[in-house]
Amino acid sequence: MKSSINRQWRLASRPVGDIKVSDFEYRQEPIPTPKAGEILIRNIYLSLDPTHRIWMSDRPQYMPPVEIGEVMRGLVLGIVEESKNPNFQRGDLVSGLLGWQDYALITTGNLPYITKIPQPLTVPLTAFMAVLSFIGCTAYFGLLDIGKPQAGETLVVSAASGAVGSLVGQIGKIKGCHVVGITSSDEKCRYLLEELGFDAAINYKTADLSPALAASCPNGIDIYFENVGGEILDAVLTQVNLNARIPLCGLISTYNTEEPLPGPYNFSQILMKRVLIKGFIVTDYVSQWDLAFREMGQWIQQGKLKYQQEIVQGLENAPTAILKLFNSEKMGKLIVQISEQP
Amino acid sequence: MKSSINRQWRLASRPVGDIKVSDFEYRQEPIPTPKAGEILIRNIYLSLDPTHRIWMSDRPQYMPPVEIGEVMRGLVLGIVEESKNPNFQRGDLVSGLLGWQDYALITTGNLPYITKIPQPLTVPLTAFMAVLSFIGCTAYFGLLDIGKPQAGETLVVSAASGAVGSLVGQIGKIKGCHVVGITSSDEKCRYLLEELGFDAAINYKTADLSPALAASCPNGIDIYFENVGGEILDAVLTQVNLNARIPLCGLISTYNTEEPLPGPYNFSQILMKRVLIKGFIVTDYVSQWDLAFREMGQWIQQGKLKYQQEIVQGLENAPTAILKLFNSEKMGKLIVQISEQP
Repeated sequence: MKSSINRQWRLASRPVGDIKVSDFEYRQEPIPTPKAGEILIRNIYLSLDPTHRIWMSDRPQYMPPVEIGEVMRGLVLGIVEESKNPNFQRGDLVSGLLGWQDYALITTGNLPYITKIPQPLTVPLTAFMAVLSFIGCTAYFGLLDIGKPQAGETLVVSAASGAVGSLVGQIGKIKGCHVVGITSSDEKCRYLLEELGFDAAINYKTADLSPALAASCPNGIDIYFENVGGEILDAVLTQVNLNARIPLCGLISTYNTEEPLPGPYNFSQILMKRVLIKGFIVTDYVSQWDLAFREMGQWIQQGKLKYQQEIVQGLENAPTAILKLFNSEKMGKLIVQISEQP
Repeated sequence: MKSSINRQWRLASRPVGDIKVSDFEYRQEPIPTPKAGEILIRNIYLSLDPTHRIWMSDRPQYMPPVEIGEVMRGLVLGIVEESKNPNFQRGDLVSGLLGWQDYALITTGNLPYITKIPQPLTVPLTAFMAVLSFIGCTAYFGLLDIGKPQAGETLVVSAASGAVGSLVGQIGKIKGCHVVGITSSDEKCRYLLEELGFDAAINYKTADLSPALAASCPNGIDIYFENVGGEILDAVLTQVNLNARIPLCGLISTYNTEEPLPGPYNFSQILMKRVLIKGFIVTDYVSQWDLAFREMGQWIQQGKLKYQQEIVQGLENAPTAILKLFNSEKMGKLIVQISEQP
């Protein structure tokens, strides 16, 4: 028998610098009841991503910020618990921005933003959080559509052991690139080299970055998949090849700062080397997601695309779990398990 | 009877900060005599461009720097004085990187880099310096291939009364854009509005840039053709629309500095607004120049593309003339006349 309580985390205050647990407020609400045309979803897995830090702020951004007092936004995989809509049945697996809560009521206006997960499953359900979701599509389209990798080219990826970075590097290998990952510990370097098949890995916390890049990229850098910003971007810009491409996916090194940060000091290299930089958000590609899911699903089944997850148990732990995104503690995809999967 | 002396300006030292006249060395050499397969060109017009400052330095750049002691590089329009090559005849008009000198000897290896000007002329000869050359192609391909202007979009161009900027704005008008120019004096603003048909013009030396841009661009900025860098780029980035394009043509505000300069403080807007930035050099498009020359030639004949020139008389004045590029003194294309045109 299901509980009658809908636990929620709401945004209590906009973070100043690092996120604090007190920026979230715990609330208990009654579980809502769907009206005609609506569905009620029981949330199972909540994805925690660096972009949450952007949504919590009111800086200019690509979606409206989460308002103070609103349920915190988050990508969730859930199961239809009750349906008053003929297109959904109890037991359907779905994903969408269902928020940091036990249950989500989807009104008719929001149904278009809910994606059904095809059943029977051909890959583990958690693969839908780690790969076949925003995460995988971010890696897939950023690298393939903007990076346009050619066999033999050199691809560098930052935050390389992270959810997106680890997929980018593996897709780069599938496309025949020389792949170099930049990450934050020797353990993560070993993971990239031994588990994911990267050609080289650099621990930016201990290495001298420019010479390390030069040693790992003897033919220069053709593609830099950017998740971080700051000094790493500057070091890369000194070693880019003519017509290099930089898919700009994230700038996590800048999200927790309050003061204005300078852009790359080597900005003029964009001119001299005719570099392309393109910011993108995965939703730009929504019409092509199916294609990406099909191809990445095959790569998972063929063992070409591996993923690692850290699953934190319990919605109550979400505000402490999200801190791991910013302190280099976790590896792979960070997920909160809210309820049992079927 | 032609003189027997070939006057030359050679690079004497790499500028520290602003160019100084003493960075050039005056030399007199005998006029060379072409051997079999070679041609001798009498230089008529020398184009002075901001990119000269880059060539004079040894910073990383898109061509080899000019070596100390070498004849200073420059785009020249000239006339074949003597030909030992069946493909060229005395009297042919040609252009190429013929240097700051009275005469250029073109050896067989360098002939592919010499372009013949089709005769009879359909536009004034000076149009080949101001429009139908590197200058026009830079504006044409940077705006059309990278900027991809659509009717109704807002185009902002910096250094708007300069050789390239003034063409970019006019081509933007031909394509139906709302065109806003940023320049350095009220006189230049009047020129953009009254002579070239820009929709708005901003004197960045007296205006408060961000509010002035907001007032001139009520629908935001779709394309920013960048010649300058620095604070102007930062102000533009706060007002770009989703999927804005920034053809990166030049960064003249940074060329004379010695210390490392920060990139744009609003770099994260590239991510949030999914901006495309692409550095380019006109030689990237060499295979399509003919197409551009044909179309721009028609626009000149139709009166749709106007150009202004400041012609400095005498090769001896080239080292003082080039300073005008960096002190906001000149308007339109800066040219040195070396000898009489036919």
